[in-house]
Amino acid sequence: MAKDKKFTPDWFEGQLPEHSLRALFKWHDPDAFKHPNRGFYTLIRDTFGMADADFTKPDLCLDQAPDQLPIQLDQQHIQRFIDLCGEENVFTDAYQRIRASYGAGMIDALRLREGIIENITDLVLAPRDTDDIEHIIAYCDQHRIPVTVFGGGSTVTRGYEAPLGGICLDMSVHMVRVLDFDEVNQTITVQPGIYGPALEDALNHAPERFGAADRYTCGHFPQSFEHSSVGGWVVTRGAGQNSTYYGKIEDLVISQEYVTPIGVFRTQDHPRAATGPDFDQIMIGSEGCFGVLTAVTLRVFKHRPSNTRRFSYLFRSWDEAVHAYREIMQADFGFPSVFRLSDPEETDTAMRIYHIHDTIADKLLRALGYQPMQRCLLLGTVDGDRDFTRLVTRKIHRVCTGKSGLPLTPFGVTQRWEHTRFTDPYMREDLNDFSIVIDTLECAVTWEQLPKVHPHVRAFVKQRPRTICMTHISHAYPQGANLYFIFIIPYTGINDYLTLQYGILDAIQSSGAAMSHHHGIGKQTAPWLEDQIGKNWMDLIRLLKQHFDPHNIMNPGGTLGLDLDQEQSAKRWGFTK
Amino acid sequence: MAKDKKFTPDWFEGQLPEHSLRALFKWHDPDAFKHPNRGFYTLIRDTFGMADADFTKPDLCLDQAPDQLPIQLDQQHIQRFIDLCGEENVFTDAYQRIRASYGAGMIDALRLREGIIENITDLVLAPRDTDDIEHIIAYCDQHRIPVTVFGGGSTVTRGYEAPLGGICLDMSVHMVRVLDFDEVNQTITVQPGIYGPALEDALNHAPERFGAADRYTCGHFPQSFEHSSVGGWVVTRGAGQNSTYYGKIEDLVISQEYVTPIGVFRTQDHPRAATGPDFDQIMIGSEGCFGVLTAVTLRVFKHRPSNTRRFSYLFRSWDEAVHAYREIMQADFGFPSVFRLSDPEETDTAMRIYHIHDTIADKLLRALGYQPMQRCLLLGTVDGDRDFTRLVTRKIHRVCTGKSGLPLTPFGVTQRWEHTRFTDPYMREDLNDFSIVIDTLECAVTWEQLPKVHPHVRAFVKQRPRTICMTHISHAYPQGANLYFIFIIPYTGINDYLTLQYGILDAIQSSGAAMSHHHGIGKQTAPWLEDQIGKNWMDLIRLLKQHFDPHNIMNPGGTLGLDLDQEQSAKRWGFTK
Repeated sequence: MAKDKKFTPDWFEGQLPEHSLRALFKWHDPDAFKHPNRGFYTLIRDTFGMADADFTKPDLCLDQAPDQLPIQLDQQHIQRFIDLCGEENVFTDAYQRIRASYGAGMIDALRLREGIIENITDLVLAPRDTDDIEHIIAYCDQHRIPVTVFGGGSTVTRGYEAPLGGICLDMSVHMVRVLDFDEVNQTITVQPGIYGPALEDALNHAPERFGAADRYTCGHFPQSFEHSSVGGWVVTRGAGQNSTYYGKIEDLVISQEYVTPIGVFRTQDHPRAATGPDFDQIMIGSEGCFGVLTAVTLRVFKHRPSNTRRFSYLFRSWDEAVHAYREIMQADFGFPSVFRLSDPEETDTAMRIYHIHDTIADKLLRALGYQPMQRCLLLGTVDGDRDFTRLVTRKIHRVCTGKSGLPLTPFGVTQRWEHTRFTDPYMREDLNDFSIVIDTLECAVTWEQLPKVHPHVRAFVKQRPRTICMTHISHAYPQGANLYFIFIIPYTGINDYLTLQYGILDAIQSSGAAMSHHHGIGKQTAPWLEDQIGKNWMDLIRLLKQHFDPHNIMNPGGTLGLDLDQEQSAKRWGFTK
Repeated sequence: MAKDKKFTPDWFEGQLPEHSLRALFKWHDPDAFKHPNRGFYTLIRDTFGMADADFTKPDLCLDQAPDQLPIQLDQQHIQRFIDLCGEENVFTDAYQRIRASYGAGMIDALRLREGIIENITDLVLAPRDTDDIEHIIAYCDQHRIPVTVFGGGSTVTRGYEAPLGGICLDMSVHMVRVLDFDEVNQTITVQPGIYGPALEDALNHAPERFGAADRYTCGHFPQSFEHSSVGGWVVTRGAGQNSTYYGKIEDLVISQEYVTPIGVFRTQDHPRAATGPDFDQIMIGSEGCFGVLTAVTLRVFKHRPSNTRRFSYLFRSWDEAVHAYREIMQADFGFPSVFRLSDPEETDTAMRIYHIHDTIADKLLRALGYQPMQRCLLLGTVDGDRDFTRLVTRKIHRVCTGKSGLPLTPFGVTQRWEHTRFTDPYMREDLNDFSIVIDTLECAVTWEQLPKVHPHVRAFVKQRPRTICMTHISHAYPQGANLYFIFIIPYTGINDYLTLQYGILDAIQSSGAAMSHHHGIGKQTAPWLEDQIGKNWMDLIRLLKQHFDPHNIMNPGGTLGLDLDQEQSAKRWGFTK
């Protein structure tokens, strides 16, 4: 085992060549980097039986992306779109088209690294307003031209590929405006292409921007926050790291507007009603298959970051920690905001990454009964009114210390997590450069299911030698939670990677969990959807699809399980390469 | 004006003759009575320019209901239902059939008082289990026999009349079981016919009934609590008086099972998911038009009544009171449970009823600036963890006293309200006996809409001379509230009553509110639904209806606006009598 403490892999931090493959798959900001630290690096090197020498020849994929890709779309259609939106808003170049057809999932990066360029839209359009979108959708419906929608490009479920070609609406160019801010109703209405930071900036500066009396927040902070769009949050039923307090996006949406092939659909602003089915809850989660989201009104909350309190505890065992966690969610004193419980492997990994492993502190913890591969880390924050955050923090402390919870709050564990909450994915490229895959899958469970799903998925993953599998509960409810799996494996080919992913999805499904809590279904999980919800409900989704989009132009090609091809249905989609 | 303090109308408290009209329209418990007290009586007498002499000849409607009503259903079908469910579960007698076709709305009582017996089911069936229901629905679908469903009979929107005849499933006989109690998930699964008290009794006695560690509550307490069924709560999107804390029924439902003409539909128990549309929110509010609810899993909460705190405040003006009320809902320190704000007319009416009007206390209040027809009463309770209820009560106190809120908490105002929270409707018969109508309509508003809807509806109602119109906010959200109108008028004929009701519904609609917050739509409000939600969404409801119930057997005849006849569509349904 290599022991050269001085060795550091040559992590890439160079300029991205314009139009390179790497520019396409790099996590979001081209100028931002975060590298595995010494602890993380040695963990991976040692777990995978690798040597420092294995980390000297990175595969950076700095080659150019193809600069020509065939366009199936008739020139007359292209001209029509130019007439509709203006030449400056129509893009035919290969790079833009690839960018608008790939997401931020591991499979997207792997395909690009392998030179697999597939399912590319023919044309990228940047509609200027809802009128443009109405005209485009009407035209596409008339001429049977497939339509996908690009927001932040952060899908990890193959959410908007274009296997049938057609056009892609890039909402991130013009459809980014704040349409209304209403302080009395505590709502903001935005176009769907606006990203998290722009939304929060507007809300945080509500006094300056809108003459408001207070500052506000939407409370929605997915890990992709910096590079994901509100529209993406809505159509995938997303969540944020603070959703245990603020609610998932379906709890935040007050009303919406969709342009569909059969017309414009608007819902109303009443916070609740008893006037038949809830239409918002039909459209949220429709993943671009029913129509194009063109406006959304969201709940907002007073922004008072100085009220936020932080906490962290170490528990002796997963069972005890889960018990305390559930007790807090069922105690009726209010919910924390971030509320994250790591399982033993994730906890130990964190201790290695943060250089606590094998220190005096670690020895002390072991002496106190907090053993490696048993102990579990809980961390979180509490938002809201100042007295409320004080109360909830105090009550959480009482529950945790009433079990085996050792208070770590003074050591700033949560602050450290907050510091990297949006940046950890930047490490993916570094690992990939040395043929190591890191990926995540998540699922929703009831409390009864949790003790079954967790070991079941772990057992499957751990069948493979040399595999890291970390799990945490990232969001919770009085009736259940989200289980979030992170797995790290040596890369042994794209089809082998897919085999593992399919196996994990099978393991999630067979243990009774819902196939996603907040990533959505996309094309990746689509083959599992019908088995989870049942044929009757799947038929209902098909009915809704047929109604809103009779000619199947909206995000066609398998999303939400609607028009899976044979290979997808058999859950054996892969590459013959 | 009569001043005889001794006079008390001869309020009826006799035995209800079996099978009498009065037995059909009397509010729920045949042996329970609550009469207008002196203050309420004199208020009505004086407002309507009546004299004590006008309260001496009650119209009690003790006559027998018709004992024969024609049955349209073929004898072979009836025999088939007897074969399916057993003779003891099939009822052909007129009284049972009328009972299963009338609700608890004013219009139901008025029709029965006027001898209008209409829209009667041909047959009442008491299915023993879900199997029975599957067989019945399959048979009815095959033979195009209309099906209505009876639970507690508390609809106030003409929810399940049978204008096309057919059969009615009475769920209150056998479909009343607790199917599962899960303390880990904090859920209970019940059949839909169970009433509020049986549900709460099971939950409150969870240790004895299920060996649970704690006692529980569902937190759902509509005014009809004692005589309404869980199924009715769900299919109408109901609310309870404590829903500001516990959530409306759509927030409490975790999963459901429906038997529809095209099969059985079950949703799953995950508290949240990102797997397409939310099917629960399609079925909740379907008002019997898609299928028969056969099981529902609800969230439950720890039952700790000793933690509950009560509060009440008097404000100088409606505007100031609404402002304080909204501030509390937007303050992020947790929500109260009951949270009821009365407008000036309701506040003054309460002061008369409780004999405060014109007392020394009243004079003191006026001297302090709390003037009649300006001052507003706020009352409520706080449920949950003991420290949480203490905090929320303290914070509410601070907000209220920071405006003009005069603390009345020590005077037990809330306790007095709680004492009569389920019994006030018993006074309706007393008023009706002397040709006075009392009725309610409610609607959902955003905070922005509230100051428009309230005066708009009041102005319309007050066009009529001698009309009492009381309003309160009964439930709230950070983004809006429920506005609940109570109006009392002299009875001048059923069509005149309907004209007023239609006018109020028009006034609600034209001011932008949702047509119902928790009563549902039924047949009464159905003609207004499409104008509220728009044709596109109405078409979607029609699509869902066509899918689940292709032969229109489920609660047909106008419910949810699905198959309105011409008269209904024109909003001029009435009686030629």
